[in-house]
Amino acid sequence: MLIGVDIGGTKIAAGVVDADGRVLERIQASTPVTRGAEAIVTTAAELVQGLLRLHGPVSAVGVGSAGQVDHESGIVVDANENLPGFRGLPLRERLEELLQLPVAVENDVKAAALAEAQLGAGRGVRQMLLVMVGTGIGGALVLDGKVYRGASGVAGELGHLLFRPEQGRLCPCGRRGCIEGYASGRAIMEIYAEESGRSIDVATIAKRARDGETLAREVLTQAGRALGLTLGGLVNTLGPEAIVLGGGVLQVEELYLPALEYGLQMQALPVMRRSCTVRRMELVHDAVLIGASLLAKERTEDGRRGQAAD
Amino acid sequence: MLIGVDIGGTKIAAGVVDADGRVLERIQASTPVTRGAEAIVTTAAELVQGLLRLHGPVSAVGVGSAGQVDHESGIVVDANENLPGFRGLPLRERLEELLQLPVAVENDVKAAALAEAQLGAGRGVRQMLLVMVGTGIGGALVLDGKVYRGASGVAGELGHLLFRPEQGRLCPCGRRGCIEGYASGRAIMEIYAEESGRSIDVATIAKRARDGETLAREVLTQAGRALGLTLGGLVNTLGPEAIVLGGGVLQVEELYLPALEYGLQMQALPVMRRSCTVRRMELVHDAVLIGASLLAKERTEDGRRGQAAD
Repeated sequence: MLIGVDIGGTKIAAGVVDADGRVLERIQASTPVTRGAEAIVTTAAELVQGLLRLHGPVSAVGVGSAGQVDHESGIVVDANENLPGFRGLPLRERLEELLQLPVAVENDVKAAALAEAQLGAGRGVRQMLLVMVGTGIGGALVLDGKVYRGASGVAGELGHLLFRPEQGRLCPCGRRGCIEGYASGRAIMEIYAEESGRSIDVATIAKRARDGETLAREVLTQAGRALGLTLGGLVNTLGPEAIVLGGGVLQVEELYLPALEYGLQMQALPVMRRSCTVRRMELVHDAVLIGASLLAKERTEDGRRGQAAD
Repeated sequence: MLIGVDIGGTKIAAGVVDADGRVLERIQASTPVTRGAEAIVTTAAELVQGLLRLHGPVSAVGVGSAGQVDHESGIVVDANENLPGFRGLPLRERLEELLQLPVAVENDVKAAALAEAQLGAGRGVRQMLLVMVGTGIGGALVLDGKVYRGASGVAGELGHLLFRPEQGRLCPCGRRGCIEGYASGRAIMEIYAEESGRSIDVATIAKRARDGETLAREVLTQAGRALGLTLGGLVNTLGPEAIVLGGGVLQVEELYLPALEYGLQMQALPVMRRSCTVRRMELVHDAVLIGASLLAKERTEDGRRGQAAD
């Protein structure tokens, strides 16, 4: 038995996961954002302790957290205002102190990608790209069953691929022209507000699109196409077997995905497109905590190998 | 001892390479383009036979060829008019028949990348991106010491990353806005010709730039910056430890590389840029044949493992 934890900007979820990746019990709490990093870590630890009381001991705990997480050192390298005080936090160390159990930490999207690759939409696939379209654009790569982390330990993001160089829209990262500035939920809201003068959320824009409003339809379609074109360029380099899509924007509306597939079709070379399928996430809400539990399992196996070597 | 062969659109080179990747002897011939695929294959085989007469037997032959080459099947999946008749050619099978030796085949840029990763500018680096700026833009990825081939077997190209979506320049691949349409040697010539009405080669444009001509300087600088911006976006996803640059354009002029580094600096996230160095190729003219010999070595080792298993 393992425990997986999903730390996000609005909620923290924890679950007991069995060896086959099934979630046996799941609990969650609101993220105490206004009370700072220590309160968030304590809340996560309390959820785990609650599960331990219900289900007995586990061998390790895995955590998928928002922000740039260095799996190797267990430190949150960067995080935005959704998780105040998380930047520089030695998350693994703090949780191991509180729980007295081995803990593995990883970025939430990378954890979700590992879960989808091993147990979800990417089963049997050697190279998988996970793309999450929510407020921002998250991404992760799984190559040969392993989460790709690059030289910095935090590679695999997709939001800062270039869409419109130089004169492009401002991205929250401070650069111009990143795809996140065109295709994220935040971008959809901002572009709609700029065009209409009305600031409404993506679900409402999606409803207006369903009701036939031209502007709403155009904004959603252009956002999806922009991401598809950009992914098409990346597919020409990476040639993955599967692109797995998830995130809030795809859940609330129906124009984004076909527009994305159109853009992908436009830009991807035929040989790359033929060997690549586009799928939806299967594990959805549990993907992060299942993936985190898989990383916890790796950590106990590393530990066992370490002991065997001693 | 191994033999490496480099099959390009203008010349075919072959060399005897020792176990440490040193080229002991190198011979070359013009590619008999007008006489078709069979003549090209025969010329390559004759060069190898010439080396065998001079140096005695070798255990295997490796070939790096222009075009999309499927290493697994040994077939040239696609090739342009530089190598007429190569599309669909079972290159490995044909050469093994002619030479009666084990042959490994791979795309030339991938072979060069393997050589640079093991013995050149990418020594000691886990993730390396090779970018070749010649008539077109070639690219290859080496991850954990292995050439990355993706699901299709021919992934790793960089020329069809998106630079200007939808209304962009036409790329030789038939799409619009690929970076190859902005930053390759061919693009530099075409853009210069469009602006000036004069069709001159890149070396002459480079000379004019050195002499202070504004248009020549602008065309070269914008091409380099376009590639740098695009690679910056890719670096944000792949976070490689090194970008290794080579190819004819970088050899003849001096504005492209600093402009590329400027673009990269603009678009890459600080955490990715910090862990990534930009280097020039070290093996230059011999990179393809050295890399091909490394693949030949792999092939003999696979063979030996196969025998040991029998």
